[in-house]
Amino acid sequence: MSAFRHKHLLSIHGLTPVEIESLLDRADSYVTHNRETANKKKNLLHGCTVTNLFFEHSTRTRTSFELAGKRLGADVINMPMATSSMSKGETLIDTAVTLNAMHLDVLVVRHPDSGAVTLLAEKVNCAVINGGDGTHEHPTQALLDALTIRRRMGRLAGLIVAICGDILHSRVARSNICLLNIMGARVRVVAPQTLLPTGIESLGVERHHDMRTGLRGADIVMMLRVQNERMSGHFIPSIREYFSFFGLDYAKLSVMKPDALIMHPGPMNRGFEIESDVADDVERSVIREQVEMGVAVRMAVLDILIHNQRK
Amino acid sequence: MSAFRHKHLLSIHGLTPVEIESLLDRADSYVTHNRETANKKKNLLHGCTVTNLFFEHSTRTRTSFELAGKRLGADVINMPMATSSMSKGETLIDTAVTLNAMHLDVLVVRHPDSGAVTLLAEKVNCAVINGGDGTHEHPTQALLDALTIRRRMGRLAGLIVAICGDILHSRVARSNICLLNIMGARVRVVAPQTLLPTGIESLGVERHHDMRTGLRGADIVMMLRVQNERMSGHFIPSIREYFSFFGLDYAKLSVMKPDALIMHPGPMNRGFEIESDVADDVERSVIREQVEMGVAVRMAVLDILIHNQRK
Amino acid sequence: MSAFRHKHLLSIHGLTPVEIESLLDRADSYVTHNRETANKKKNLLHGCTVTNLFFEHSTRTRTSFELAGKRLGADVINMPMATSSMSKGETLIDTAVTLNAMHLDVLVVRHPDSGAVTLLAEKVNCAVINGGDGTHEHPTQALLDALTIRRRMGRLAGLIVAICGDILHSRVARSNICLLNIMGARVRVVAPQTLLPTGIESLGVERHHDMRTGLRGADIVMMLRVQNERMSGHFIPSIREYFSFFGLDYAKLSVMKPDALIMHPGPMNRGFEIESDVADDVERSVIREQVEMGVAVRMAVLDILIHNQRK
Repeated sequence: MSAFRHKHLLSIHGLTPVEIESLLDRADSYVTHNRETANKKKNLLHGCTVTNLFFEHSTRTRTSFELAGKRLGADVINMPMATSSMSKGETLIDTAVTLNAMHLDVLVVRHPDSGAVTLLAEKVNCAVINGGDGTHEHPTQALLDALTIRRRMGRLAGLIVAICGDILHSRVARSNICLLNIMGARVRVVAPQTLLPTGIESLGVERHHDMRTGLRGADIVMMLRVQNERMSGHFIPSIREYFSFFGLDYAKLSVMKPDALIMHPGPMNRGFEIESDVADDVERSVIREQVEMGVAVRMAVLDILIHNQRK
Repeated sequence: MSAFRHKHLLSIHGLTPVEIESLLDRADSYVTHNRETANKKKNLLHGCTVTNLFFEHSTRTRTSFELAGKRLGADVINMPMATSSMSKGETLIDTAVTLNAMHLDVLVVRHPDSGAVTLLAEKVNCAVINGGDGTHEHPTQALLDALTIRRRMGRLAGLIVAICGDILHSRVARSNICLLNIMGARVRVVAPQTLLPTGIESLGVERHHDMRTGLRGADIVMMLRVQNERMSGHFIPSIREYFSFFGLDYAKLSVMKPDALIMHPGPMNRGFEIESDVADDVERSVIREQVEMGVAVRMAVLDILIHNQRK
Repeated sequence: MSAFRHKHLLSIHGLTPVEIESLLDRADSYVTHNRETANKKKNLLHGCTVTNLFFEHSTRTRTSFELAGKRLGADVINMPMATSSMSKGETLIDTAVTLNAMHLDVLVVRHPDSGAVTLLAEKVNCAVINGGDGTHEHPTQALLDALTIRRRMGRLAGLIVAICGDILHSRVARSNICLLNIMGARVRVVAPQTLLPTGIESLGVERHHDMRTGLRGADIVMMLRVQNERMSGHFIPSIREYFSFFGLDYAKLSVMKPDALIMHPGPMNRGFEIESDVADDVERSVIREQVEMGVAVRMAVLDILIHNQRK
């Protein structure tokens, strides 16, 4: 039924435009479904078990997946591994093998190490969704961003998208760069030297160190979250200086297209990477929509992966 | 169907006697329902999502709401925010807006700051239940206490209720004072000077610093939990002295009406604010019933709020 | 329907061979059920509430019980008490009485103190399953081990089973010794002097301090997890010395029967108590099967206990 035929969703890298469109089309139908005030529950995944295996804390992403699973009628089990005693000396592979023996249907995995989720996927029979691994990928975030843009702009191809902030440590940036390139958008990355990896141009992006040139004529700006633990001198001199050069305010916005959209994966640090008024701009900020699209995208991914498994 | 027509349940303050009676009547029917040994599950809230958003730890209250939601067929999602990374720098309003974008039906919120739950309720479309905010209110606790009394005494009006202990910091006391006044009971507060706010009489209560006068002729005594963190000299000289003057024992009980009821919101510190034998008095202690009424009251509130939303 | 007529499952001690066989037979049917790729969910326990009350962290065991409950259609509520504020000063009995007032159907309890689960069971109306108490018992682990053996070997009677490692602190060892004796197997315990309780022979086991004599001609070896906190000199001189004398490797395995099975309750410390290659031996290691049997055994126990309650 869907053009997406993979067993897992481990990365955006490697997907085709048709596969991505197919995921977004399914997600679109779930947006409509979720907006209905009456019974939002479907029985599509009745009898399936979705497990959130989170080696990093993330209440927001975990909740989005949990809601997506429950809306489709699945049983959802949360395994918060960051505080877990299960990990006491046990290898990731042994954890994977243990869970596999329980006959689960989908594992949603978040892990601090890049590549850990792919490794785990090789050891299990069930479908695996990468819920974010190290600085590698966070594919459902890129899909929900794409859905948000497509619904507002009608398309992805040809748009100019500026991704601003800590590109170096961001799996959100990496998945978005990949998806936007596949779908024919033009991507710029805007950051201080210290937060841009060398050779980033090879991913097919334009490199900018100045918000004025980076945002000029752009259709979309995606602000990344500034992580406090990076603010103590190694990467950034001070919050005030960072905000002055790279924080999004109306002055910097003014060089973008008049109907440019403002995006942020959340949670926001108001006054750090984005001015409060800009974040709340009812015309241009689509930050709330991104959260809504998140649930719909995750429903689509769960639905399609479990369907693929049953074939 | 119910006389309670509000969108949220944020406080007891502002409710009418008819609204309170209507909530208690519905809760009463759930007490009967829960006592049936067979299938306790109803499908009334099938397709609804109830989210426990707890910025303070409380396994007991969270479990009571979770059970109430599941018994009615709702999906329940727990968001323990006290340990969450979601709160990393994010404002309460942003958290509210994020959750709202997920199309939840009910948010049960506990928060350490008085007024935080009301603030949050202004920003969301779904129904909000105050699960305890700072030293402000804890409305479902007052409702479950009222149901417990009504079932035992047949009425609330005209009863003399003594609330004893740390009134100053207690949202339980505040919600109970409010509800009992609305329903026509007479409330006394009994505590050392340091634990009684100045001007408490303006809430319509009698002020007592001596358990003998405070309990004399009373129908009900509600003991409050003494929090250990307050026992180190600022408010109370020592546990031993506190128990001697304000701990409930049979000597102090003897001045109450012969069939007076003993209540406690739990968890109890036996030997701190209440003598062990008194807590277990099968004739007069209704502490276990309070827990049972808690689930029934929360089922009633969920049921009515979601029904009001659907109209 | 089942020969197991008890209200609770608190220990293996006290069960008859017929009762154990009856539990294993029911569990066997759930193994088949869980292996079916389609709808694994049953509605047998619809309307029942299973509560995981864990005073010790254990993601693995908690998940196994949660999955078992949900597969049978029950509502499952997790109460992680190790980090809970519920326990703030409250006695275990008060916690039990509180939960009892909520009309739960099954309480699965893990507690660091031996005997705590039995004490709790005396105070509640619902069925109680011991999920591991102190160094006392862990009955579902022994049942899942027995099911694993029975499915591979066709029987338990007459087999020679060597349990190796920290017998002194192990509830897994205690439950297994008890079950294997009841079913007519011959049990050997193999450990350094410091990790074997005096008088262990009175439980009906052979005592060994040398893996070569302990494993000679045995059908099964059950390796116990070495807990890191015991490795700092009190009980064991060093990891290297421990592994050399008591770690399972191919040299030590060579004295066992050629088709001997290797078991481990997990999580494994590879290189501490078991060599990596041995743990992964596809012919003889049944460690993954143990996890699978765990879910089936817990489904059987939940199913039978709730059925007994309803009679």
